[in-house]
Amino acid sequence: MIETDILIIGAGPTGLFAVFEAGLLKLKCHLIDGLPQPGGQLTELYPKKPIFDIPGYPSVGAAELIDNLMEQIKQFEPGFTLNEVAETIDQLEDGTFIVTSNKGTKHHAKAIAIAGGLGSFEPRKPLIENIAFYEEKGVEYFVKNPEQFRDKNIVIAGGGDSALDWSIFLSDVASNVTLVHRRNEFRGALDSVEKVQELKKLGKINLITPAEITAIHGNERVESLTLSNGDDTQIIETDYFIPLFGLTPKLGPIANWGLEIEKNAIKVNNALDYQTNIEGIYAIGDINTYPGKLKLILCGFHEATLMCQSIYNRLNPGKKYVLKYTTVSGVDGFDGTRKEAEKAVVKSID
Amino acid sequence: MIETDILIIGAGPTGLFAVFEAGLLKLKCHLIDGLPQPGGQLTELYPKKPIFDIPGYPSVGAAELIDNLMEQIKQFEPGFTLNEVAETIDQLEDGTFIVTSNKGTKHHAKAIAIAGGLGSFEPRKPLIENIAFYEEKGVEYFVKNPEQFRDKNIVIAGGGDSALDWSIFLSDVASNVTLVHRRNEFRGALDSVEKVQELKKLGKINLITPAEITAIHGNERVESLTLSNGDDTQIIETDYFIPLFGLTPKLGPIANWGLEIEKNAIKVNNALDYQTNIEGIYAIGDINTYPGKLKLILCGFHEATLMCQSIYNRLNPGKKYVLKYTTVSGVDGFDGTRKEAEKAVVKSID
Ligand SMILES: Cc1cc2nc3c(=O)[nH]c(=O)nc-3n(C[C@H](O)[C@H](O)[C@H](O)COP(=O)(O)OP(=O)(O)OC[C@H]3O[C@@H](n4cnc5c(N)ncnc54)[C@H](O)[C@@H]3O)c2cc1C
Ligand SMILES: Cc1cc2nc3c(=O)[nH]c(=O)nc-3n(C[C@H](O)[C@H](O)[C@H](O)COP(=O)(O)OP(=O)(O)OC[C@H]3O[C@@H](n4cnc5c(N)ncnc54)[C@H](O)[C@@H]3O)c2cc1C
Repeated sequence: MIETDILIIGAGPTGLFAVFEAGLLKLKCHLIDGLPQPGGQLTELYPKKPIFDIPGYPSVGAAELIDNLMEQIKQFEPGFTLNEVAETIDQLEDGTFIVTSNKGTKHHAKAIAIAGGLGSFEPRKPLIENIAFYEEKGVEYFVKNPEQFRDKNIVIAGGGDSALDWSIFLSDVASNVTLVHRRNEFRGALDSVEKVQELKKLGKINLITPAEITAIHGNERVESLTLSNGDDTQIIETDYFIPLFGLTPKLGPIANWGLEIEKNAIKVNNALDYQTNIEGIYAIGDINTYPGKLKLILCGFHEATLMCQSIYNRLNPGKKYVLKYTTVSGVDGFDGTRKEAEKAVVKSID
Repeated sequence: MIETDILIIGAGPTGLFAVFEAGLLKLKCHLIDGLPQPGGQLTELYPKKPIFDIPGYPSVGAAELIDNLMEQIKQFEPGFTLNEVAETIDQLEDGTFIVTSNKGTKHHAKAIAIAGGLGSFEPRKPLIENIAFYEEKGVEYFVKNPEQFRDKNIVIAGGGDSALDWSIFLSDVASNVTLVHRRNEFRGALDSVEKVQELKKLGKINLITPAEITAIHGNERVESLTLSNGDDTQIIETDYFIPLFGLTPKLGPIANWGLEIEKNAIKVNNALDYQTNIEGIYAIGDINTYPGKLKLILCGFHEATLMCQSIYNRLNPGKKYVLKYTTVSGVDGFDGTRKEAEKAVVKSID
């Protein structure tokens, strides 16, 4: 059982920044995310793109912003349960909560912050009979751990940035990378397309277009695939099949937690603290809704901050909290580090 | 008459970021501030100090954050009325407003955003009879324009960072800088204290401690000062006397605008758009109050953003606004510049 003060569901920018604000209040956080890495939409959907409306950043790369947030929160030592989706929630008699993931991991927390964005990302799957049988037996919809593919034969399918970028990356890891796409044209960053072109010429990526994978074969796990182009078909042997056809976010299991839902989002009390209709469960960032809501990163930061204050008051009833400026009080990490402004000196001049 | 869509009262971080969000909505802003430079508390009170709770910045200097905000908004060409305090407001029949400064400058705007922080900064003045007579006739409480002091004799009084830093800076501009403080000890950044020590040794700053200025003399303007140390007094000739004893923010004239005030702040509707009790007048950042309000920079950013949407809807009734991501749509400046993410290409690989 993982124990924490605040369990944050979703490790996008909103959930990550909540760790910082909680830490200032001496509250410990643990995050759970269905994706293999923190960063939410930013790292999964547009890591290399610039964002222009983060206050104080005329321009910042999406992945760079997440790196900076990870750096900013590291002193508060957040825990992470990655690659797992929060599935059920139970409230104990003392008001605390237990959240169980799809893999059975249990998290016990005093308060819950749902920062689930547009929901958990579900892969668009190719329409192949029996594909479900091969999932985690050679079929992977995410590259969770590139090392898994070391010295293996892999087939990637798709025509967008993910398919291009993972083909490039894994061409150095796998013994053989085949990239299959149903069109000749790829859609992605220019440098990615050019790099694949180059690796193809060097024989490091085996490119097959236009074509589709239409069947999977193997007894226990993936052994080979049928590749079709119209009436032409051929069988290719492989250890892994990685279809990268994009992700669709689904509110998913959270929809059944008894929370008030409106337009696929969770209603919260924005006049106070972004709490949901269930006391002790908050919703912040893209996943919540209220009059005038804007699904913007900077709004999630504010919501996370007000939520943390409310959780602090909930967990410390009667204790009067006085806001401290980080500039004035410094930041004391749970890891023993301290960040602080240079102190003024009182010194005579002679 | 200065014409604008939104008149922003206060050029602190909140007011500055509002320019950006308004710009995305094609609304033009003008700012008025009683201080000589933009940045509010950050540039006036703690420019060299680091801030640790700006989301995405593990640490950022206060002045650096303001520089970045100025860079971020420059494409939207905000106008500035500096060194002037917004004093009176009148609403015209068409619902627009005219705000007049203490110097008589008139601003005509469709909506008003009060981002006045803790209020307009008023200098703590030394208790010298008739000092009011010499204001702007040799007595200056702010260094508005350093060039004003070129090749002049100046006397600075005070023992904090402002007194130290301006003495250092003006020692290169003025013909003669005298620094007077009633104690021997100065309180400030170590490097400032050391620099003054060094300039004193070089004869570039004339240091007199412990001592106080107790009288000002001159017919039309400042000609000389009485310097006292207990019973010892002496007369020193000077062109300027600059007492830098700190600033106290005062809600000031805004308190008489008919706005609902609570605990020295303006009540707003935080459940919707940070509008005050007067339609068309909004209050954002440190100057507003609502249940759960936190006087933090990051909160002002969110409030500014929601406010701009509300102003947009007010000025464009019936027009449906669809939120656009800066990453996807880019940012079109009023100055003709365009910032945008690199476009995806659609390209075949052969
Ligand atoms: C192409 C694009 C461009 C954008 N450009 C901008 C921009 O310029 N400016 C801007 O402000 N915003 C922009 N956005 C929106 C911005 O990305 C979102 O506002 C932001 O990601 C919201 O952050 P979040 O932390 O609330 O949610 P997310 O980033 O969506 O993160 C939520 C996380 O929760 C996880 N999750 C959900 N449910 C569960 C569950 N049950 N169990 C475990 N994990 C779960 C998800 O896997 C995900 O990682 C853009 C979005 C896109 C797609
Ligand atoms: C020492 C110190 C350390 C701090 N550290 C932190 C920190 O670590 N993190 C954090 O989030 N916050 C911190 N703060 C608070 C932070 O500075 C404020 O939250 C922030 O400045 C508020 O921004 P603002 O734009 O709302 O107001 P301000 O920065 O106060 O700016 C308001 C401006 O309005 C002007 N103004 C007011 N009335 C009028 C008028 N009638 N006419 C013309 N101009 C007017 C003023 O001159 C001023 O320039 C700190 C504050 C101090 C003093």
